[in-house]
Amino acid sequence: MKSDKIFIFDTTLRDGEQVPGCKLNTKEKLELALELENLGVDVIEAGFPISSPGDFLSVTEISKVVKQATVCALSRAVEKDIEVAADALKGARRPRIHTGIGTSDFHIKSKFKSNRKEIKERAVQSVKWAKNFVDDVEFYAEDAGRTENEYLASVIEAVIQAGATVVNIPDTTGYCLPHQYGEKIAYLVNHVDNIDKAIISCHCHNDLGLATANSIAGVIAGARQIECTLNGLGERAGNTALEEVVMILRQHAHLGFSTGINTQRLNPVSRMVAEIMRMPVQPNKAIVGANAFSHSSGIHQDGFLKDALTYEIINPDEVGADGSKIVLTARSGRSALAHRLHKIGYDFTRNEIDVLYTEFLRMADTKKEVGEEDLHRLARVRV
Amino acid sequence: MKSDKIFIFDTTLRDGEQVPGCKLNTKEKLELALELENLGVDVIEAGFPISSPGDFLSVTEISKVVKQATVCALSRAVEKDIEVAADALKGARRPRIHTGIGTSDFHIKSKFKSNRKEIKERAVQSVKWAKNFVDDVEFYAEDAGRTENEYLASVIEAVIQAGATVVNIPDTTGYCLPHQYGEKIAYLVNHVDNIDKAIISCHCHNDLGLATANSIAGVIAGARQIECTLNGLGERAGNTALEEVVMILRQHAHLGFSTGINTQRLNPVSRMVAEIMRMPVQPNKAIVGANAFSHSSGIHQDGFLKDALTYEIINPDEVGADGSKIVLTARSGRSALAHRLHKIGYDFTRNEIDVLYTEFLRMADTKKEVGEEDLHRLARVRV
Repeated sequence: MKSDKIFIFDTTLRDGEQVPGCKLNTKEKLELALELENLGVDVIEAGFPISSPGDFLSVTEISKVVKQATVCALSRAVEKDIEVAADALKGARRPRIHTGIGTSDFHIKSKFKSNRKEIKERAVQSVKWAKNFVDDVEFYAEDAGRTENEYLASVIEAVIQAGATVVNIPDTTGYCLPHQYGEKIAYLVNHVDNIDKAIISCHCHNDLGLATANSIAGVIAGARQIECTLNGLGERAGNTALEEVVMILRQHAHLGFSTGINTQRLNPVSRMVAEIMRMPVQPNKAIVGANAFSHSSGIHQDGFLKDALTYEIINPDEVGADGSKIVLTARSGRSALAHRLHKIGYDFTRNEIDVLYTEFLRMADTKKEVGEEDLHRLARVRV
Repeated sequence: MKSDKIFIFDTTLRDGEQVPGCKLNTKEKLELALELENLGVDVIEAGFPISSPGDFLSVTEISKVVKQATVCALSRAVEKDIEVAADALKGARRPRIHTGIGTSDFHIKSKFKSNRKEIKERAVQSVKWAKNFVDDVEFYAEDAGRTENEYLASVIEAVIQAGATVVNIPDTTGYCLPHQYGEKIAYLVNHVDNIDKAIISCHCHNDLGLATANSIAGVIAGARQIECTLNGLGERAGNTALEEVVMILRQHAHLGFSTGINTQRLNPVSRMVAEIMRMPVQPNKAIVGANAFSHSSGIHQDGFLKDALTYEIINPDEVGADGSKIVLTARSGRSALAHRLHKIGYDFTRNEIDVLYTEFLRMADTKKEVGEEDLHRLARVRV
């Protein structure tokens, strides 16, 4: 089956980096940009050049060193923003300007004190300004998740007409349910006449824990780019987690999609991001959490030891994680105990394990985890 | 509109507690059980009594103190397991035994070296055993996510016939996509003749970051119970996060569902779980992360200050979180700067803010966050 390429647009350096405490200096940003290129992302959103001199410098420097990936710079639908973004991107081999404006009534009325007609004109104007500098222009319809579909479609059609190559449909507040977000993308596919002239992009936020599911629903409905960050970093509850959408598309090959990501780099790059941005990843995080491949309950351990596929759908090597772990706690069973004892050189009969197991449980009830030293002590009593 | 009640089955003390490092003693478990009851969960899965003497004791003690919620104990489809579970539940006002067996071919062949017919018989037998002790019996079809639907339906029909009051359809490996999990639940609704005699329960794992979305898809398709944990704790990448599904059902009232959860307790109980289980919640975690209500980019801050609804779908008070925060970083704009200066007693004209802003950006480019002391220093230069 031929699979459709899904473009991975990484915004760790922009939407991720604007998180309180995550600020990086230019040197750190350059290192991360090169890691992202090595990971195989298609687009690196490097910053928001007008926002500060530091951000401008970072985009300039990243543009010089990145070779394969598209380098993208953010701007508002403001002429000066776009000029500064273009200036910062000068050295890039594949520059993209990302510009846009809020299209929901919340944004139009509360933020811009404007009306739909005027906002649409400003949207078109922003794309035209950007087109003066680069061929590749991405337009974002901020708060598209809460924008009425008919108006959204008319804005999208107009910006594609003006030259937008990518149209980004952000669920800015993380409000949509997967079927709603999918229906929104499908609506655009079916109602925007020139939609085949641009790539639809998903940009989802995780306020209700649905960013990943919404992005996948978007792709199934016709989007071909996902905007995401390592570890799901980002404003408030964060953005779509790159590692999750990439592994879903890989594990569910029947959907007919592929990405250019080198999945074995996922865990190393995730760790690097967590360290330089000082944003720890919780142990129970999908794909990149410290416990993602740890088995602790007896029922699971027993099944896993008979056949890893019983409880594991991803081989840890595939995502560059340390091997699967059999952790011994009070919930572990005899087969896990025998397995761990065997690994450190002790082989007992079934009856011996039965006796040891009672002793093991007594030990495990008093501590969080039974480690190697405890096992040696346990074994020595019997040997 | 009348809304359907969704039962919240909390398994923080069972599926959450079996995580490496999360082990609690009986006193801690009792405290947490009372907090869960206070939070308004319908069912507390208190432990797996046969697994260890400590677990047995905890279920016994929790059964004595919990007044409103159902107290549930886990068992395998093994007579001795069920007897011990029943024994531990003796003091409970509303006892439930949760028993079951793997139904996917992975489990039937690799783990049990058995066949479909025999597994179905063992399933029915386990429910009958449990019914000797309690009225309320929940059956789990382990790895239902990878169980062929026709066979799954025949097992579910048989266990309901044997007296199961709740049928749990776990996506044990976290493999399903939301539409697949929803279709599985819909298949059962449509193909199990006696399905109206039991409640269908969703039990999803987060290996691909989809546990929350899958549970919601299940409920939309006809399930009426969600099994979940605070902070999404659990084996490997964890379980469905209680706080996420509860807030999705609340924010999307148009779906027609409600829960009995006192949402203002979500953040306090989340913090308690993180502390006693020593499992930190990442800052970018939905609903309960430290940054869940922090606004840092200039564009967002400006919109938020004009109308909170522009960027916030949940009022932090509603989930017991500290108020929304306007954090000052290099990405912040003039309106956020003016707002924070105003909060500490300085009111400047627009022109003055313009001048201060340049100085502010220079400061912000060199540090992660501009704090109150920095603001005083900045203001004093101008005053």
